[in-house]
Amino acid sequence: MKIRIREAQKSDMPDVISLIKELAEFEKEPDQVEIDSTILINDGFEENSYFKCFIAENNDCIIGAAIIYNRYSTWKGRTIHLEDLIVTEKMRANGVGTLLLDKVVNYAKKLNVKRVSWEVINWNKKAIKFYLNKGALIKQDWSIVHLDNNALKNYI
Amino acid sequence: MKIRIREAQKSDMPDVISLIKELAEFEKEPDQVEIDSTILINDGFEENSYFKCFIAENNDCIIGAAIIYNRYSTWKGRTIHLEDLIVTEKMRANGVGTLLLDKVVNYAKKLNVKRVSWEVINWNKKAIKFYLNKGALIKQDWSIVHLDNNALKNYI
Repeated sequence: MKIRIREAQKSDMPDVISLIKELAEFEKEPDQVEIDSTILINDGFEENSYFKCFIAENNDCIIGAAIIYNRYSTWKGRTIHLEDLIVTEKMRANGVGTLLLDKVVNYAKKLNVKRVSWEVINWNKKAIKFYLNKGALIKQDWSIVHLDNNALKNYI
Repeated sequence: MKIRIREAQKSDMPDVISLIKELAEFEKEPDQVEIDSTILINDGFEENSYFKCFIAENNDCIIGAAIIYNRYSTWKGRTIHLEDLIVTEKMRANGVGTLLLDKVVNYAKKLNVKRVSWEVINWNKKAIKFYLNKGALIKQDWSIVHLDNNALKNYI
């Protein structure tokens, strides 16, 4: 196995959307993915760049991805958010997740940001253990709030 | 009382940092605010623009603020994150929070984003009730994860 981590290009987005869908299925929310590779290309590589993506390759085959973007903490200043850290199921437990997270952390350090944040589904104990081992904290005292598309439409 | 909501300018940042500190005290984390108004000006109004800020004024006195920025959902596409929604204590329960949230929601609708997200501290039942009344969902099944500045430094 020869794993390489590199920055994603437009042409990788069909593979990346497959990974996103695989993760959504794993998270028991397969119908929640409402975007496609065209939207990813438009939003990540065209006029605007709403995210940055690193991919993991094994012999030129894409087996994982990390999708990140800037956030801003009014306590700490600039931060990086890791939206997804995905390794395709059959390639898990080979250290690919660590290589991707290493890349994200090195990138965050280079930018001198004060935090890398992400979100984890509560029953994914394996992921939580992995994150805790990396020095991350689970913020038990805070909750995520969403005003979703329907709520936005109905908002008065 | 004559409340006006407008986009913040550089010169508002000293008042905004006071509001941020007031909220951090209310959240029992007064020592967590590590930035100042100079950093806010640099990060919001100079070369880069990592956030956007709306403020609420009562007779030219700043009494509240909403700080937002872009995020990106690999399920929904572009979203807006509301980092802070602050109303100074003595001006609460006058509808100022609603006016600020309205402004954020209208802005999000104009951009056609699919979600507005934020975070709430679990014991702030008043805030949670306010958000639920606006149609927001508390994501009970997901947790926030932080790799903070120390963890980044110690990350191997």
